[in-house]
Amino acid sequence: MIWQPQPGLTLLTFPGIPRELYLMWSETAIPFLCAQGWGNTRIYSRSMRFWGIPESTLAEKVAPFLHQTSPTVAPYAGGGEARLRLSVKAASETEANEILEPVQQEIQALCGLNYYGLDGDSLASVVGKLLQERSETVSVAESCTGGGLGQKITNISGSSQYFWGGVIAYNNQVKLQLLKVDPEILETQGAVSALVAEQMAVGIKTLLRTDWGLSVTGIAGPGGGTDTKPVGLVYVGIAGPQSLVSHREYRISVSQGRDWIRDVSASNALDLLRRYLLDASA
Amino acid sequence: MIWQPQPGLTLLTFPGIPRELYLMWSETAIPFLCAQGWGNTRIYSRSMRFWGIPESTLAEKVAPFLHQTSPTVAPYAGGGEARLRLSVKAASETEANEILEPVQQEIQALCGLNYYGLDGDSLASVVGKLLQERSETVSVAESCTGGGLGQKITNISGSSQYFWGGVIAYNNQVKLQLLKVDPEILETQGAVSALVAEQMAVGIKTLLRTDWGLSVTGIAGPGGGTDTKPVGLVYVGIAGPQSLVSHREYRISVSQGRDWIRDVSASNALDLLRRYLLDASA
Repeated sequence: MIWQPQPGLTLLTFPGIPRELYLMWSETAIPFLCAQGWGNTRIYSRSMRFWGIPESTLAEKVAPFLHQTSPTVAPYAGGGEARLRLSVKAASETEANEILEPVQQEIQALCGLNYYGLDGDSLASVVGKLLQERSETVSVAESCTGGGLGQKITNISGSSQYFWGGVIAYNNQVKLQLLKVDPEILETQGAVSALVAEQMAVGIKTLLRTDWGLSVTGIAGPGGGTDTKPVGLVYVGIAGPQSLVSHREYRISVSQGRDWIRDVSASNALDLLRRYLLDASA
Repeated sequence: MIWQPQPGLTLLTFPGIPRELYLMWSETAIPFLCAQGWGNTRIYSRSMRFWGIPESTLAEKVAPFLHQTSPTVAPYAGGGEARLRLSVKAASETEANEILEPVQQEIQALCGLNYYGLDGDSLASVVGKLLQERSETVSVAESCTGGGLGQKITNISGSSQYFWGGVIAYNNQVKLQLLKVDPEILETQGAVSALVAEQMAVGIKTLLRTDWGLSVTGIAGPGGGTDTKPVGLVYVGIAGPQSLVSHREYRISVSQGRDWIRDVSASNALDLLRRYLLDASA
């Protein structure tokens, strides 16, 4: 509802349901405001998204940019990732892009592979695009994430083009039976170990005959941690073309709990694959 | 911060981060308010949670309760489920429970299996408790949910006691290879069909040797729908003890998009298992 209870005061009221509010804002409120002579200059912005670099480290790296005024560059953090928001006042989108683009390019060059995409991108969508460009496929073997990695990959509509599927190997028997993890390695190294992560990745790649195999094994807590293998210890395994096999170890902060550890673990796996897809020496 | 800018006006300010706010509210604000003589009577409430019944149908069923004043009973909806919040002013938790408990029991009797739990419960936690009581195990075979069902089950700490794992069979080859879906059935009925759902459930139960097998296959959209099989059509398959095999068909509203369809599908699968665990004739 748009109403003017007294001269010089216009009120715009919206429903509380976000979906309805957004739609009414863009379809009704913006045209109304423009017709009133507002909005001749607007603020245009884009968010650069980073994974694998803490917000504070990112802010140090791009410190000179944080003081400039056109565009302004502001760091944010949330959901395990760091973001930089570039904003500029301009008369049109074209004018805005001319100012934003070179700054984005400079920051991107500074940050290398830690930068993964813009506003609407996600690690899963970026990995999906890279796999499609290369006509390659991926499968997953999940222990502590319990399906959350596959869930993230298949959030992307069209992921059936490059995602074959996977095995949720929550119980160790499943790791042995379907993923052909070596029982001796499982016994001596434990399920949460670099070698088991690698064997899970090789196992699923072989089983489903995909170009890449991606695995996650870790301790999501709150129980199950030990001195040598604390809650938050997670291994991601990766197997790829030309018999590439590798892993990465993560120690995820336990302060935000089990769901957080599982969610960040799935994102770490996607990020590791992204780095290998962009640079085989990642 | 607690401050008194003028007599008769006390302000309590909190940080915006929800986690910090909740902690400060319970550890600092409540004791302060009680010390000021507030809080001699408090409002105690509990939320009853329902799955498989729309909020409007639930509200009709419990209509007489919605007009009473102690406790008050108010319907809510969100995340695909309906809830009833029972609230009462009382001097102590014991007094509150004496008023709340009989009303809850009456409503529960009215609503049968559509009621699944209270405040902190989730479909996954309720299913987990039932499986543990019966010392039974479950595995999953997921197509359109892509891991989301396993993810929900393993959200529950301790789920390794009853969840062995599963297969994400996103590609039809995986349905044939690992879940032993009949190629002729897959060809003639299509991947999104009652029979394929049942075969997937039997397939994963057999493969991982669990007491229960639970499957999901459906069209999450936005593409891939046809006239006879529209976006939102989802089959859940279930296989259990005593060669029980069954399925249920769901037609999920497409208005809230792909993520919603996938999320509701995983919850529907958990709910179907819950009903079978509570009543084999479900």
